[in-house]
Amino acid sequence: MKPYRDMTPEERRHEYAAVKAHYDELRSLNLKLDMSRGKPGRDQLDKVSDILTVLTRDDCLTADGDMRNYGVLAGVPEARRLWADILGCRYEETFVGGNSSLQLMYDLIAKAWAFGLSHSEKPWCREEGLKWLCPVPGYDRHFAVTQLFGIEMIPVKMTPEGPDMDAVEELIKDPKVKGMWTVPKYSNPDGIIYSANVIERIAEMKPAAPDFVLMWDNAYVIHEFDGDYVPFPDILSLCRAAGNPDMVYEFASTSKVTLPGSGIACMATSEDNQKYLQKLIGIQIISYNKVNQLRHAKYLQNKEHALEIMKRHAAVLKPRFETVLNALEKEIRPAGIGRWATPKGGYFVSLYTDPGLAKRTVALTKEAGVVLTGAGATYPYGKDPDDSNIRIAPSLPPISELEQAMDVLCTALKLAALEQLNA
Amino acid sequence: MKPYRDMTPEERRHEYAAVKAHYDELRSLNLKLDMSRGKPGRDQLDKVSDILTVLTRDDCLTADGDMRNYGVLAGVPEARRLWADILGCRYEETFVGGNSSLQLMYDLIAKAWAFGLSHSEKPWCREEGLKWLCPVPGYDRHFAVTQLFGIEMIPVKMTPEGPDMDAVEELIKDPKVKGMWTVPKYSNPDGIIYSANVIERIAEMKPAAPDFVLMWDNAYVIHEFDGDYVPFPDILSLCRAAGNPDMVYEFASTSKVTLPGSGIACMATSEDNQKYLQKLIGIQIISYNKVNQLRHAKYLQNKEHALEIMKRHAAVLKPRFETVLNALEKEIRPAGIGRWATPKGGYFVSLYTDPGLAKRTVALTKEAGVVLTGAGATYPYGKDPDDSNIRIAPSLPPISELEQAMDVLCTALKLAALEQLNA
Repeated sequence: MKPYRDMTPEERRHEYAAVKAHYDELRSLNLKLDMSRGKPGRDQLDKVSDILTVLTRDDCLTADGDMRNYGVLAGVPEARRLWADILGCRYEETFVGGNSSLQLMYDLIAKAWAFGLSHSEKPWCREEGLKWLCPVPGYDRHFAVTQLFGIEMIPVKMTPEGPDMDAVEELIKDPKVKGMWTVPKYSNPDGIIYSANVIERIAEMKPAAPDFVLMWDNAYVIHEFDGDYVPFPDILSLCRAAGNPDMVYEFASTSKVTLPGSGIACMATSEDNQKYLQKLIGIQIISYNKVNQLRHAKYLQNKEHALEIMKRHAAVLKPRFETVLNALEKEIRPAGIGRWATPKGGYFVSLYTDPGLAKRTVALTKEAGVVLTGAGATYPYGKDPDDSNIRIAPSLPPISELEQAMDVLCTALKLAALEQLNA
Repeated sequence: MKPYRDMTPEERRHEYAAVKAHYDELRSLNLKLDMSRGKPGRDQLDKVSDILTVLTRDDCLTADGDMRNYGVLAGVPEARRLWADILGCRYEETFVGGNSSLQLMYDLIAKAWAFGLSHSEKPWCREEGLKWLCPVPGYDRHFAVTQLFGIEMIPVKMTPEGPDMDAVEELIKDPKVKGMWTVPKYSNPDGIIYSANVIERIAEMKPAAPDFVLMWDNAYVIHEFDGDYVPFPDILSLCRAAGNPDMVYEFASTSKVTLPGSGIACMATSEDNQKYLQKLIGIQIISYNKVNQLRHAKYLQNKEHALEIMKRHAAVLKPRFETVLNALEKEIRPAGIGRWATPKGGYFVSLYTDPGLAKRTVALTKEAGVVLTGAGATYPYGKDPDDSNIRIAPSLPPISELEQAMDVLCTALKLAALEQLNA
């Protein structure tokens, strides 16, 4: 096959007829497949469901008291040690919350909104025109939070090393810029690991806003599915060394280590920030689910053992990603209508179609029974300026379904490309 | 013994010497006892710790899908049915959250603050001079939430039937009055069950604020420790019948049914409110811990079975309350320096000392190694105008410790009373 743009009109009409016929055939199958979200597959969950019954009564009576009762706001020490080990930060910098890191992130911004953070001059709801940096493409649920609070989101281009730091360093001179979203390891959706140089420049930022918030969502900190664990620097140490100890809030959870939404989440930040925040958090809740924290500490033990458990996930995920990548290689590469990188961790393949094709491709895919993340979802306000990025989540469907789903997606993209070229 | 106020000065000096000697003796024991919070005792927790291992992998695969994965924001249907059964409300009105009803309450007010509620003209942070009704004595953690948001708290006297509704009906004519805290069954701390008449008048309130919030914290809805379950009306139906369907938000949790802080919490409110709120909640969290929700649904089954389990708690709690009440009866009644009611459910004995004695009593008690809830804590801003109310929480200490602790408390109160009378 030749690249579509090199075909003669005649060749393209021919190709269109063939692709359309295949699309109609796929559509007639009445498929119901889902590649929209980074949900682990059932086979992954089966490999860690022994956690459900691992904790017994006696485990709850620890050196620190009866963890079945109220109290211990910052989380059980066993779980805090686990997170300090995984993230590489200090024990004192950890706070273990409920089941959701997103909720911890939302809550931090909600607290900034209502009361201000440790370096705020006033609550954010008393300021006008707040802005936020959003490396793009990025995570739609992040963007939804800042949008909800009416904070203007400014896209910053991602490079293969992380956010464009020249742009970031310029933008943070504006004191209205209050923060930045990041997913520094296996970024959502590109699967990029921020380079040491980018991370250093991030830690050394000198934002004009005294209460600028670096949201360091380390969602995939131990989430390699291909190859060994990739060591990653501790952003808290780097920020401290750069004289920015209170700028960064790091988040992580076990949602893709044990069971999604039934795990434990962590917020790591400076001791001063912890002191400030825990005073507020203590008014909102007496303590988080410490039994589940202990259950996870017993099951995961430490970073080393958690990495062992992550290999169980990798064994399931790697063939799934290969299925997606092989399909793209076989169907899209020759047509020359898209590009993508090959991630070694995280939960997504980030496909860039030729400009102007993403929306149409996702719509065609949906018509044929396959749900993808909405086109544009990876950009603030859902606006992908190139209408190009499609986030593929290979983890949920079994391989056989994934093959079908990718057949649909590739066929839809080809159809969209041919429609555009023939128009 | 005669009532202190009927004693001659000579008799009082004599009594003081005896009481002081006993107090000094108690203080020399270097006790470390805690009657400060409504924490269940270890023997209670042991009776329900079989919940820890009750849920297995297969239980998680329900008719609604794989509950080990993300999704199902409003909670697993099994847990929603359980709460509808316990509260007597409709299934559609239930939302099952995380481990803490306090967090759901805080979150509701935080959302009103940042975004407004379904009937708000604007977010509360854009209004000035907001006020809130606080039946007193009440729950210090409620008051801490409204205080944090800078909402002016207006105390409303409790009567033996519930809040003074004449006062409430007058106060809600002010459109700045945005809500009211209540603990309608076994109120914290008085242990009062609101009467049918008071509940009806509450449901029929016509507040001037269109977004007035009735916070119905049904914390002790099935928490009888003495005698049979006392049926209690469904406030949601009553508010609906009175044309106030969206005024009420009901809260409850299993924190004193299974394990404190490791259970599940519920918010019940009208379907319209649910629709409005879930749109916002869906931005803050993908789903709550559904595995723990299922675990609780399997363990508690339904209201009837939950009431059976509550009898295990009652068997432990009743003797503890009797210990407290017997001590008061024996030591305080004859001295005529305090009064109290005899609750049949909930977690507290609410002691009213003669005016001006509570702070001194709690301080003396603390000096002798027994921690009580701070005097005044049951009033907004910690200000008990009579310096009279002391909340006693009998649940945590074993009986032997409780006897000692009550000895300390009664001795401290007598000492405080004699100091005052001799002054």
